[in-house]
Amino acid sequence: MNQVASPNNDLRQITTAGSWVAVDWGTSSLRAWLIDENGVTQNSAKSTQGAGTLQPSEFEGVLLDLIGDWLHSNAKPTQVFICGMAGSRQGWVEAEYVPVPTKLTELHQHLVSPKTGNARILPFIVPGLCQKSEQHPDVMRGEETLLLGILDELSDKSGVFCLPGTHSKWVEMEKGTVARTSTFLSGELFALIAKQSILRHSLETEAELDKDVFLATLDQLKSQEATLLGNLFGLRAGQLLNNTSPQAGASKLSALVIGTELLDMLAKCGDNPPKQVHLVGGSKLAQNYALALQHLGITPILHDADKAALKGLSAVRQGALNDNS
Amino acid sequence: MNQVASPNNDLRQITTAGSWVAVDWGTSSLRAWLIDENGVTQNSAKSTQGAGTLQPSEFEGVLLDLIGDWLHSNAKPTQVFICGMAGSRQGWVEAEYVPVPTKLTELHQHLVSPKTGNARILPFIVPGLCQKSEQHPDVMRGEETLLLGILDELSDKSGVFCLPGTHSKWVEMEKGTVARTSTFLSGELFALIAKQSILRHSLETEAELDKDVFLATLDQLKSQEATLLGNLFGLRAGQLLNNTSPQAGASKLSALVIGTELLDMLAKCGDNPPKQVHLVGGSKLAQNYALALQHLGITPILHDADKAALKGLSAVRQGALNDNS
Repeated sequence: MNQVASPNNDLRQITTAGSWVAVDWGTSSLRAWLIDENGVTQNSAKSTQGAGTLQPSEFEGVLLDLIGDWLHSNAKPTQVFICGMAGSRQGWVEAEYVPVPTKLTELHQHLVSPKTGNARILPFIVPGLCQKSEQHPDVMRGEETLLLGILDELSDKSGVFCLPGTHSKWVEMEKGTVARTSTFLSGELFALIAKQSILRHSLETEAELDKDVFLATLDQLKSQEATLLGNLFGLRAGQLLNNTSPQAGASKLSALVIGTELLDMLAKCGDNPPKQVHLVGGSKLAQNYALALQHLGITPILHDADKAALKGLSAVRQGALNDNS
Repeated sequence: MNQVASPNNDLRQITTAGSWVAVDWGTSSLRAWLIDENGVTQNSAKSTQGAGTLQPSEFEGVLLDLIGDWLHSNAKPTQVFICGMAGSRQGWVEAEYVPVPTKLTELHQHLVSPKTGNARILPFIVPGLCQKSEQHPDVMRGEETLLLGILDELSDKSGVFCLPGTHSKWVEMEKGTVARTSTFLSGELFALIAKQSILRHSLETEAELDKDVFLATLDQLKSQEATLLGNLFGLRAGQLLNNTSPQAGASKLSALVIGTELLDMLAKCGDNPPKQVHLVGGSKLAQNYALALQHLGITPILHDADKAALKGLSAVRQGALNDNS
């Protein structure tokens, strides 16, 4: 813990003065935005130096390389608010997992501040969330900040949220408080199957989604005529016997994985499925989730993940400012 | 097809004279047995030179290296009966997939014989099986021979069969005829998750099975409190939050994968689940399947896979001999 200054001391240094930097530092990528005194984005930058590839001692240098040009030339420190895997045990410095239920507007109370060798930056890392449960233990880092970022788009700050990705996150929120979370390994499993399994020869994952195949497979899953585990090998056998195209194979795999995730989540809701699900994404993947939700009779509401990260980091900073004022 | 001699010509050379060699040539391994005139196994050998690693031109040399010492010193050819992936399109020479329903005692009618440069061997490859279906296409190579090998242990040559492995095969057999087949990617998926996914740090797959964890996870699956996709990430979160041991994690993963496979199969049977399932295996894996089946109220009947392969190849040869007599 020698890299962590006492939060109380450092939080006092969060002032409104000058511009600041927002950073979303995930496992495989790093994005930064320069925000001016009026809250306007003046610059942005990104890098592939994700937290997963770095030693703790390397974070400061990587960040300075990326945003150094934005900083004041004198030693006046620029505040940098960071969410994501930079706060993991293997990251820059560990930020705790705050247990749910957690009110998102209180995330700033758990900021940690890595010590730096360079006086031009004053970094703060947002905590993650955890669900302490014997049956359904769960953790997240980064998604909590995105959720905070879309809070003011929601009339009653409640609902069901899905953040598709390598580890797809589902969140039930009640009046701004995260109540329950679930993580599906869908994205990682899709990639492993598509790139490493025997099916890799039968799948063209870069191709456009074949919507007919995608929706027909969803229907099979829904009517319990198909299951994920029981139908994977059929992608290969279908190519051998029926000349199923690798494009169709990839669309089928996508439906098997996404559909299984959605139907698992809906099954948990029993007789009371949500009428709408908030999708926080931006990629083609989120579009596929939206297509599947719509087909299952649920309205998808799309939110841009980049905007959500930036707004969430601004909200964390504002929370800290308010506490200091 | 220039490597394939006409089956009719070569089948005439299948005579009872002398000893012969049985070969089970899978993707990743090769096993051979020398059988004498009285049907007694005189020698056996194995190698890791599976069909998956070889070019078509390499099969003959690999086989001669392994069994050369068993062959007659003169040019009198020794019959070699081969099942498994050696008969795939990427194997020694392609043996067709015979469509189900197929009577197992007629497999020998579809033997193919690769041409050889060495007159000391006369090889025959057993065909695979396929299920030509738009919805549930399926293929197998090797398992059909194992099933033929246990036919005479079955009172009415009927039942449900499971051959656990990389690609776990399920077969419904009626009076010696394979009616339906299903393949689950369970073994391959388990290995990908355990070795390549983010869970690899949370799993100790070489450890002894923790039966309590295994059976409790099965119960969660059965009561629909857990699903495969929705609970994988919990293996990691459980280690982070609850200090779940990597041994317990591996046992849980095993139950999630095997349990999902078994429950998928049972769901297909609707209100008429089988009272018993024949398990053809021999490894620890088959023991885990047996434990799970028993826990679900189904009697597992274990058959040794090596013995089944040898007996199946003998039965194929006997079928060809009978046709020639």
